Amino acid sequence: MRVVITGAGGFVGREICRQLLLRGDDVVGLDVNGGGMSNGIRKIVGELSDPAVRRELLSADFDAVIHLATVPGGAAEIDPAASRGVNVDAMYDLLLEAAERQPGVRVVYASSIAVLGDALPATVDDQTPLSPKMIYAGHKAMMEHAIAMFSNRGMIDGVTVRLPGILARPKGPSGMKSAFMSDIFHALKNGEPFECPVHPDGTIWAQSVITCAENFIRAVHLDSALLPPTRAVTLPAIRISLQDLAAEIASQCGVPVSLVSYNPDLALDAAFARQPLLVTSAAERAGLAHDGNPAILIRNALSLI
Amino acid sequence: MRVVITGAGGFVGREICRQLLLRGDDVVGLDVNGGGMSNGIRKIVGELSDPAVRRELLSADFDAVIHLATVPGGAAEIDPAASRGVNVDAMYDLLLEAAERQPGVRVVYASSIAVLGDALPATVDDQTPLSPKMIYAGHKAMMEHAIAMFSNRGMIDGVTVRLPGILARPKGPSGMKSAFMSDIFHALKNGEPFECPVHPDGTIWAQSVITCAENFIRAVHLDSALLPPTRAVTLPAIRISLQDLAAEIASQCGVPVSLVSYNPDLALDAAFARQPLLVTSAAERAGLAHDGNPAILIRNALSLI
Repeated sequence: MRVVITGAGGFVGREICRQLLLRGDDVVGLDVNGGGMSNGIRKIVGELSDPAVRRELLSADFDAVIHLATVPGGAAEIDPAASRGVNVDAMYDLLLEAAERQPGVRVVYASSIAVLGDALPATVDDQTPLSPKMIYAGHKAMMEHAIAMFSNRGMIDGVTVRLPGILARPKGPSGMKSAFMSDIFHALKNGEPFECPVHPDGTIWAQSVITCAENFIRAVHLDSALLPPTRAVTLPAIRISLQDLAAEIASQCGVPVSLVSYNPDLALDAAFARQPLLVTSAAERAGLAHDGNPAILIRNALSLI
Repeated sequence: MRVVITGAGGFVGREICRQLLLRGDDVVGLDVNGGGMSNGIRKIVGELSDPAVRRELLSADFDAVIHLATVPGGAAEIDPAASRGVNVDAMYDLLLEAAERQPGVRVVYASSIAVLGDALPATVDDQTPLSPKMIYAGHKAMMEHAIAMFSNRGMIDGVTVRLPGILARPKGPSGMKSAFMSDIFHALKNGEPFECPVHPDGTIWAQSVITCAENFIRAVHLDSALLPPTRAVTLPAIRISLQDLAAEIASQCGVPVSLVSYNPDLALDAAFARQPLLVTSAAERAGLAHDGNPAILIRNALSLI
């Protein structure tokens, strides 16, 4: 099949492209940065908000769209208008144009657990109300409803997947406020000290990028009758404390866990390291999965860095 | 207090203005049609999507914004781009500008039960997921998240109220697909026959415009700590079948109920006359209410036509 993917040069996009190519799929990728995209895909370099770029992206027949391109959380806080332009306006245009070009096409949309907000109940499940606080999160949540509306009208066949922390991102500025979850992998793999900006007992929801990409490909193929009426599911994730994460990474890398020290930033800790119990029945019914256990999560995450 | 109200010349807006003036409040109203607005308010005539009009609307200090202006359901289906322009883009700009002018201001936003979609469970309550199908409904749902996000950031103090069928609208084209619920009042009050476009056993959720306006004014004053994390509540409503509605109107008007005949339109019946049981605990906790019983609902509705 032919898959159109936006944000193809990003951390998650590259791994999805790698897996799609292994399956023998045709891939048409868009990214603002041509250098990040895999060889073997048709590369389009440009801004999602440029109508001519979207026209080129959708110019040939396609069987599915995976929409990852985004102004991420940290960048959206700094420039809310840029987030609105890309995360709302350009995405809305993309949905309209994909529906016109290929009516009823499967669209898989990367939303985020950030849509839940930061005042979470003791257990988050499929009934937990959305209450976004970050600009990024508000825009992601708005577009979840656009996916549902266009799907209910038969214009697209949409699936929203809400991503937990995806491990382990490359080093360097990503615009993601949650980058510390990945930076700890790089530090320990290199035997370097790491100052963790959240409490040792802080808990995160995590998934390796390998498993995340597998879930996107499952989402391309799943039967939408298995989805809730919102079309949105929170991806299954391993819930792990920072100290347990550190211990398992250190053990797998053969370095002392004492390389990790803690100097919590209260805002970061509140926003990213207070994840409660997580129940993801809707996603599991639709065939999506987490890594299995913490050891596999960390092995998977280490295997790609 | 001073209240800014958009859509002030509309059916609901006029009654809110009347009640605000009775309370002694100052009212600044916006409408595309100057003729519809009450005397006694400061009238601004223009389009919500015109930045200069919004600037004038927000030029003096204010204590609350009631946002009613909308491209309604039927009109939005005909012109989805107009709905996007007013119901999403212009409203988003209005929220940003109100927050900048008067940080933390109370904003009461008129959403609609249409956000729930048309495949409803046997009982609708505060946990029922949103699954909009109409363009209007998708846009209303998107902006519910914008209200929550801006409120969680302290930029505004938002309250979303989802309106059921509001009775009885004036005769004539309103752009509302649910106009039949009001037209039956006008016909029977005038002793004229009425052909009802939904089944006699079809059920609707209804509130009189008097009670609806009271709820908006309560929403201006309520303590937002009483609201759910979404900031959105479905207004309490009387659930009544079309045949019971017809019988009560006929009785109160002293005309034979045989004036009403039924010629169901399947699409209209499915979209507007299959309202299941309704539980509105969140709204009731916040102090919002329905008319009390069907006889009062219909007396209230008849009193203003």
